[in-house]
Amino acid sequence: MAFLKQKSISSDLAQKMIDKAVQKATELGIKVNIAIVDQGGNLKAFCRMDGAPLLSIQIAQNKAYTAAAFGIPTHQWYDMIKDEPSLRLGIVHTEKLVIFGGGYPIYDGKDLAGGIGVSGGSEEEDRICCEAALSLLETV
Amino acid sequence: MAFLKQKSISSDLAQKMIDKAVQKATELGIKVNIAIVDQGGNLKAFCRMDGAPLLSIQIAQNKAYTAAAFGIPTHQWYDMIKDEPSLRLGIVHTEKLVIFGGGYPIYDGKDLAGGIGVSGGSEEEDRICCEAALSLLETV
Amino acid sequence: MAFLKQKSISSDLAQKMIDKAVQKATELGIKVNIAIVDQGGNLKAFCRMDGAPLLSIQIAQNKAYTAAAFGIPTHQWYDMIKDEPSLRLGIVHTEKLVIFGGGYPIYDGKDLAGGIGVSGGSEEEDRICCEAALSLLETV
Amino acid sequence: MAFLKQKSISSDLAQKMIDKAVQKATELGIKVNIAIVDQGGNLKAFCRMDGAPLLSIQIAQNKAYTAAAFGIPTHQWYDMIKDEPSLRLGIVHTEKLVIFGGGYPIYDGKDLAGGIGVSGGSEEEDRICCEAALSLLETV
Repeated sequence: MAFLKQKSISSDLAQKMIDKAVQKATELGIKVNIAIVDQGGNLKAFCRMDGAPLLSIQIAQNKAYTAAAFGIPTHQWYDMIKDEPSLRLGIVHTEKLVIFGGGYPIYDGKDLAGGIGVSGGSEEEDRICCEAALSLLETV
Repeated sequence: MAFLKQKSISSDLAQKMIDKAVQKATELGIKVNIAIVDQGGNLKAFCRMDGAPLLSIQIAQNKAYTAAAFGIPTHQWYDMIKDEPSLRLGIVHTEKLVIFGGGYPIYDGKDLAGGIGVSGGSEEEDRICCEAALSLLETV
Repeated sequence: MAFLKQKSISSDLAQKMIDKAVQKATELGIKVNIAIVDQGGNLKAFCRMDGAPLLSIQIAQNKAYTAAAFGIPTHQWYDMIKDEPSLRLGIVHTEKLVIFGGGYPIYDGKDLAGGIGVSGGSEEEDRICCEAALSLLETV
Repeated sequence: MAFLKQKSISSDLAQKMIDKAVQKATELGIKVNIAIVDQGGNLKAFCRMDGAPLLSIQIAQNKAYTAAAFGIPTHQWYDMIKDEPSLRLGIVHTEKLVIFGGGYPIYDGKDLAGGIGVSGGSEEEDRICCEAALSLLETV
């Protein structure tokens, strides 16, 4: 086959997911950065809530990238590598790789179509914001 | 629309395009680097012919990236910016942007699906190698 | 002696090794990135199979570089450093160094002539793909 | 052919070339940085004379790299690109490319085997230091 058919998140959906993540963060009383990347790992939408930490600008983007570039949530990385000493020690140095929670791939059915990353709250809070945003996909 | 449908060059076609570019370079008596990136601008295939200059490893990849990331051949950039002093002075500093010939977008019909970059010959020779590789698309 | 005689992998052999690694990955049902670098650690050939993770584009290249740049398989690094706390803590930060499996040096007899790196499967699967490619050298 | 035969400058010759460049710089009353890279463009030897400018540490290395990575003296670049507006404007942004004098390839006969770069004097002085070092090759 000469060309692959791919799906990639639209700007419209990306914005809706960000709005949903912001709404959830507001409910939780936290201020976060939210990044959405497309199928190719390139930035599609971004929002830093007022008061969200600067340090998390890059972390949110890296979480979204890691999720889109490998196809699994970032919180699954630790379990994958924790019992393999060389990976545990080494793979964490991979550029843009995040191995803690708060990044999720975005699928259209079986097609990997992007990633979302949230950073600024606790790991659990970041994940809750992502999951709120991802819940929109069930209604697409 | 929630998800965009995209096309992206397959590994199989990328390899065939590289083979064709190598064949054309051999006819021309030059040694070149050839890079192919996918729809997202990420490296898909690369070949450095024996004796091709090391300096061109990155240039070939940047040409392919520029073409995929903007959708026009790299040799069209100069005409776009030459009469606009601020662009002429400034935009050439954009990371990975190449404004001289030897990079072409890869389209599947109207869908931007990747890019090819060749570096190592003269600008004209690099373009001829790209065009030879792109001629394969007519038969897809 | 004024000049050293060196061996370096040819473009032709690099391509054959990539084809062999792809074949093995296909047998294993995985999608990987494969990179080959020459004696100087410079990229010679690269292939990303359809569906292979973007995150592994750089890892495959770094594995190949590490192997060519030190002359041992990347999976031997962990045993070398694990009992030396300062190395364990520090050397993993070396740019482009990969200390887990999936990168192998390419030798022509005793001459270090390049490196191959595979990334995208499990560590064991990546190693199997490299070893399949390296088996071609026995017939050279 | 599976493996290419290459030549690369030895540490011994690299050191002699540096000594010769230092001697010439001393005669000229200048303080320079001298870099020698091997066939793969990797640093082989380096010397910063007492009082030589820090700014030239990187320039000397880039000159040596450019020469080894393209096979021609760096002062020939300007003539190559000056009448081609897109190259003139664009190619100068290539990472590590130096288009002014003071970098020379090192050949063993017809084999490209490395590069030398000198920086810290005027362009003419830098070239004279390189040429003094290269004169050693006639006696190898």
